[in-house]
Amino acid sequence: MRVFNFAAGPATLPLEVLEQVRSELTDWRGAGSSVMEVSHRSKAFIEAAQAAESDLRELLGIATNYRVLFLQGGASAQFSAIPLNLASADAVVDYLDTGAWSKKALEEARRYCRVNIAADEAASGYCTVPDARTLKLTVGAAYVHYTPNETIGGVEFPYIPDTADVPLVADMSSTLLSRPFEVSRCALIYAGAQKNIGPAGLTVVIVRDELLGRARPGTPAVWNYAAIAAQGSMLNTPPTFAWYVAGLVFKWLKTQGGLAAMGERNRAKAELLYGAIDASGFYRNPVAKNCRSWMNVPFTLATSALDPRFLSAAAAAGLTNLEGHRSVGGMRASLYNAMPLAGVAALTAFMQEFERRYG
Amino acid sequence: MRVFNFAAGPATLPLEVLEQVRSELTDWRGAGSSVMEVSHRSKAFIEAAQAAESDLRELLGIATNYRVLFLQGGASAQFSAIPLNLASADAVVDYLDTGAWSKKALEEARRYCRVNIAADEAASGYCTVPDARTLKLTVGAAYVHYTPNETIGGVEFPYIPDTADVPLVADMSSTLLSRPFEVSRCALIYAGAQKNIGPAGLTVVIVRDELLGRARPGTPAVWNYAAIAAQGSMLNTPPTFAWYVAGLVFKWLKTQGGLAAMGERNRAKAELLYGAIDASGFYRNPVAKNCRSWMNVPFTLATSALDPRFLSAAAAAGLTNLEGHRSVGGMRASLYNAMPLAGVAALTAFMQEFERRYG
Repeated sequence: MRVFNFAAGPATLPLEVLEQVRSELTDWRGAGSSVMEVSHRSKAFIEAAQAAESDLRELLGIATNYRVLFLQGGASAQFSAIPLNLASADAVVDYLDTGAWSKKALEEARRYCRVNIAADEAASGYCTVPDARTLKLTVGAAYVHYTPNETIGGVEFPYIPDTADVPLVADMSSTLLSRPFEVSRCALIYAGAQKNIGPAGLTVVIVRDELLGRARPGTPAVWNYAAIAAQGSMLNTPPTFAWYVAGLVFKWLKTQGGLAAMGERNRAKAELLYGAIDASGFYRNPVAKNCRSWMNVPFTLATSALDPRFLSAAAAAGLTNLEGHRSVGGMRASLYNAMPLAGVAALTAFMQEFERRYG
Repeated sequence: MRVFNFAAGPATLPLEVLEQVRSELTDWRGAGSSVMEVSHRSKAFIEAAQAAESDLRELLGIATNYRVLFLQGGASAQFSAIPLNLASADAVVDYLDTGAWSKKALEEARRYCRVNIAADEAASGYCTVPDARTLKLTVGAAYVHYTPNETIGGVEFPYIPDTADVPLVADMSSTLLSRPFEVSRCALIYAGAQKNIGPAGLTVVIVRDELLGRARPGTPAVWNYAAIAAQGSMLNTPPTFAWYVAGLVFKWLKTQGGLAAMGERNRAKAELLYGAIDASGFYRNPVAKNCRSWMNVPFTLATSALDPRFLSAAAAAGLTNLEGHRSVGGMRASLYNAMPLAGVAALTAFMQEFERRYG
């Protein structure tokens, strides 16, 4: 029996995609082999890889002056690869600190550049985003980095920062593809696959052409954006199975109506859950209302003593992986694209029943 | 219909493993989710990950003073990660140059260290390995690097170099697990998964404890061996699906009798194919007989004009991916663990018939 899986990542995937993977697992496209057993340089795989890129471009409206890279290493590898590729050792880079993931990114960047903290929301317990007018941006910075959605804190920017001529870099791991996004406002977007894209082990980088070719000496060959782009992300063997599944997810998104439709659906899911939390005297979400994430909803019970009971009863009801990140505790429901509204409705019904019994 | 797939990697996997993957694709261990959808920090996944490590240790007889890391990035990422982790910028490192892959490794190392070429087999067209007594090793080198099996050239060392006190580093991507190997002779072994381990996107590193903690400043956080080891290869989200499949492959190897049995089987497969080539006046393998690879067998036809006909007739007979690497042309049959003797017998029968018709 399939459950409603609220994991933050690796996360739930569309059942239709999994069923297609299963149906062709030992014989992909009549090759007599699994897609896992096929050369990345075969005609069939290259076709699938290019279709994935083309579908992603269509979904996000990515202009031709951007390259799309399919990489390994997770978003965390990009924490190092971005300064190595985009900034010299004496450059200043601006980071907006809005939570655990932006903090990890800026700490890694400090090992390679001079980091200016252009906004720091720690004082709010990372429950806010900075006012767009208060960002302390550096004139002539190599880039500005921000995290549009914080997976742990559940904080999502309601706006895209205006950085004028300075390239804007966005870690969109947990929000990419959840609704329409103006890619052209960013110079570089990156995302670990294991939320809205596919299995863990794949990272998508969308980068404006003009940023290629700036890698500093000592950048590992397999992390050099220009070299990777020149080889169609096949400088070395790519994670073929994850790339293939991502391609199926992109096709699934198109059948669902694309990002406008996903955005409406995700808005409805988030409104349902936040509405249930706010209407209750028992559950609480700490995030300021103007920047609550549509994808990751942390919440607490009236007393943490009830957490184990909540989790076990939820799991018994087929609502799994609701525990909050180990660094913050409490609960967290991730509502990625593959989570249907019915799953959120089941969760809110369960929450109301739990509150009736234990509240 | 399944074919006999002779691809060099991504390569054929055991059908029993693929069938198990298929059977639990949408519901793994009763989780109600695919293994792709399960958190790497869940109890179930950690158990599977630890079982994979434990089975690999058992198969290879890895002593407790070695750490086993499950990484991303391919063996090519290790070309940079090894000098970054094991050598300072002014260190000398020794490389044995025996083909395309050792050459790639040493060229990347040159960006980080002073590289001494301790052996250079280019003059033979990379059809030989150096005599063990002629290696020009550097006293006090940070490490010696070699490639026990060259996937493109089809050259395999019949011995393990003796480097005395200097740590020996081995790129075993295309030979690990193909037969018993004295791990204790090496300080570090690494292997891309997509040959004898599992799907592309996973790299196994086996490293002696004492080499941890030497990473130079500027080593990317996700490549720092000591930090990765301290986190059980979960410093950031690992490629969970590939790790899971690798675990199934290790269990399959144990049911097959382990590496001693695989070694006997692989020897028989290689002898059958090399015997057929040598007995023919039509096919030719260029490699010196003392160092022919058991895993990758390059061969040429009497005339390359027949190559397209050979490849299409072979594919029609269910023998796929026999084209040689694009850098060398000709044919190549890779005979990894998952290729049964019956596949090699079918290939040699096909080759004899082809020679009768066109020879």
